[in-house]
Amino acid sequence: MADTATRAGLQLRSTVKKEGIVEISIAEVPTQEPKPDEVVVRIEASPINPSDQGLLFAGADLSTARRSGTADRPIVTATVTPAVMRSVAGRLEQSLPVGNEGAGVVVQAGSSPAAQALMGKTVAILGGAMYAQYRCIKAVQCLVLPAGTTPAEGADCFVNPLTALGMVETMRREGHKALVHTAAASNLGQMLNKICLVDRVALVNIVRKPEHVDLLKKIGAAYVCNSSSPTFMDDLVDALSDSGATVAFDAIGGGRLAGQILTAMEIAASKTAKEYSRYGSTIHKQVYIYGGLDRGPTEFNRAFGMAWGIGGWLLTAFMQKIGLEAAQKLRERVAAEIKTTFAATYTKEVSLAEALGIDEIAVYSKQATGQKYLINPNKGLR
Amino acid sequence: MADTATRAGLQLRSTVKKEGIVEISIAEVPTQEPKPDEVVVRIEASPINPSDQGLLFAGADLSTARRSGTADRPIVTATVTPAVMRSVAGRLEQSLPVGNEGAGVVVQAGSSPAAQALMGKTVAILGGAMYAQYRCIKAVQCLVLPAGTTPAEGADCFVNPLTALGMVETMRREGHKALVHTAAASNLGQMLNKICLVDRVALVNIVRKPEHVDLLKKIGAAYVCNSSSPTFMDDLVDALSDSGATVAFDAIGGGRLAGQILTAMEIAASKTAKEYSRYGSTIHKQVYIYGGLDRGPTEFNRAFGMAWGIGGWLLTAFMQKIGLEAAQKLRERVAAEIKTTFAATYTKEVSLAEALGIDEIAVYSKQATGQKYLINPNKGLR
Repeated sequence: MADTATRAGLQLRSTVKKEGIVEISIAEVPTQEPKPDEVVVRIEASPINPSDQGLLFAGADLSTARRSGTADRPIVTATVTPAVMRSVAGRLEQSLPVGNEGAGVVVQAGSSPAAQALMGKTVAILGGAMYAQYRCIKAVQCLVLPAGTTPAEGADCFVNPLTALGMVETMRREGHKALVHTAAASNLGQMLNKICLVDRVALVNIVRKPEHVDLLKKIGAAYVCNSSSPTFMDDLVDALSDSGATVAFDAIGGGRLAGQILTAMEIAASKTAKEYSRYGSTIHKQVYIYGGLDRGPTEFNRAFGMAWGIGGWLLTAFMQKIGLEAAQKLRERVAAEIKTTFAATYTKEVSLAEALGIDEIAVYSKQATGQKYLINPNKGLR
Repeated sequence: MADTATRAGLQLRSTVKKEGIVEISIAEVPTQEPKPDEVVVRIEASPINPSDQGLLFAGADLSTARRSGTADRPIVTATVTPAVMRSVAGRLEQSLPVGNEGAGVVVQAGSSPAAQALMGKTVAILGGAMYAQYRCIKAVQCLVLPAGTTPAEGADCFVNPLTALGMVETMRREGHKALVHTAAASNLGQMLNKICLVDRVALVNIVRKPEHVDLLKKIGAAYVCNSSSPTFMDDLVDALSDSGATVAFDAIGGGRLAGQILTAMEIAASKTAKEYSRYGSTIHKQVYIYGGLDRGPTEFNRAFGMAWGIGGWLLTAFMQKIGLEAAQKLRERVAAEIKTTFAATYTKEVSLAEALGIDEIAVYSKQATGQKYLINPNKGLR
């Protein structure tokens, strides 16, 4: 039955200090007593997504990371450059919890029937502060996982699956007929390939390594272009001509790739033009930057006419824009296909203290394909 | 009465040759016989707008410009680099007429009453091939200038006035309440200031020289920021906070300015934020690039959250989007205010042959503020 004692639990916190460092530590915090419509979830799995690392590390220079404190309660500090300090001014001296999403077991429930019905169930939740042993949350925010699903299997129910679905939905709503994705061998990229195969949408995958071409071909990808190949631009133009893709979702952000994609789209579009226009094709070409794997500046030479756009794309803004009903449909699809289309794979499961190991940080902060970590905040503590 | 003899006239032509040069010359071409609904305009004034120079020079390296031919029929050639050749592939070996807009006197008219009614009138026209002694065009495309208006006064009735009006209209339609303009001391920029004063719209002007600050202040500009000042970013943030501008129109294109504007908009937006969001403010910030005074690459560091966009803005695409009726309203406003709000100033009036002088090209191709040329294709020929 319900364990109604107020319990304390460990929680990861990140603070940007005014002297120009980020300090990441583990605090013992009391767990909120659930209100009638709330439950307490014992978190057993929470992924370290790229979208978590911005809040976690505050853009710090991780080559300066140092660990102090004890084995159980480590403290990591790293230098934040003055330029980056400006962009994180809004969080100065605030001790912030981290972790967008996770999954676990409901161990305490408020008095309402909806909350009580969740006792003992394995659920997935979204809402921040997931790098913690316990998380108090509204019952209505819990996505009950199908029977037989482990917390690790359900940990990534929101960010990657909804982002992948959101890309296809954005493509449709903005009148494009096919799409491009970069860093395409990622967990998210593999999900997107599975969605596009089922939905019969043409997807042009851009990867950076030959082995990632093979990986995607194996799961059925029709178009895979390797940006490190000398024939990349020609390959991309061919794939864009063939697929008709005029919108791209870019996880890289920095460097020249966004501009190369627009240039290739323009070359593909001009192939069908009847007469020369000095302002280029009238077909709108769009790149949405949704990540920042390359934190350097974005650079492009505007060799793609005048009908183009580059902009930010954020899942939460997209979900708000489409409205509750459309958003709920996407969530239901994720739950139904969590072990197939939306299955994620992880390199390693770590405790909160292990996640603050300098060697571990060096690995997962690279956000390299196939190097995704899962935090189990209760690992070794039960 | 109508002069019905088919006449020949000089016309400026630009050709990109496959060996990697642009060749600009003056051809004698027969003037089309007007159909019933057409008229022939003797062009007496046509501005060299930045938007004309792309077609005229094809992005050639003008430091390599050489003049040959005769004094009356000069030929200018200049090298087009391989990178640029790729972007102008669609016009290879085509001899293209140049000149978006102009004004002159109707000297021949088709049989329809509408065409006949224009005989002898001074009209402004848009439609290309204006760097020519004569231009045959549909009567309905002629904007009759108010009595007492000279062709020089009416030469710039379309591109700059409609672009300036289009910016304010885009601002309104996309839900912004104030706007930013770069290269703001230009003819276009001064028109935009006059429009915004009349319409009571807050406008943040960005210029590159102290004397341009004075110029704009004198015509009543409330916000003028000098991008070469060491306090530029702080000045810009203050102006954006005060005005609430969240959309910018950028004539520069290359370099870091577009990104600086978005960064300053984000800092201004964050000042009113209630709590820290790692994804930045939720207020959409937009920069439209409508020119390329700096032909170098565009570079930005994405230090402005996720709610942002950069894109191309093109007058013809905008006019199509808003529809005939709205477009006609804008045109009528221009005609009514051609000697006040939309008055343009020119440095020099040149003939077609003079426009192909190497020294003249060196001046007007810089597109510097206060160095705007007017071509009179009939200068010295009548």
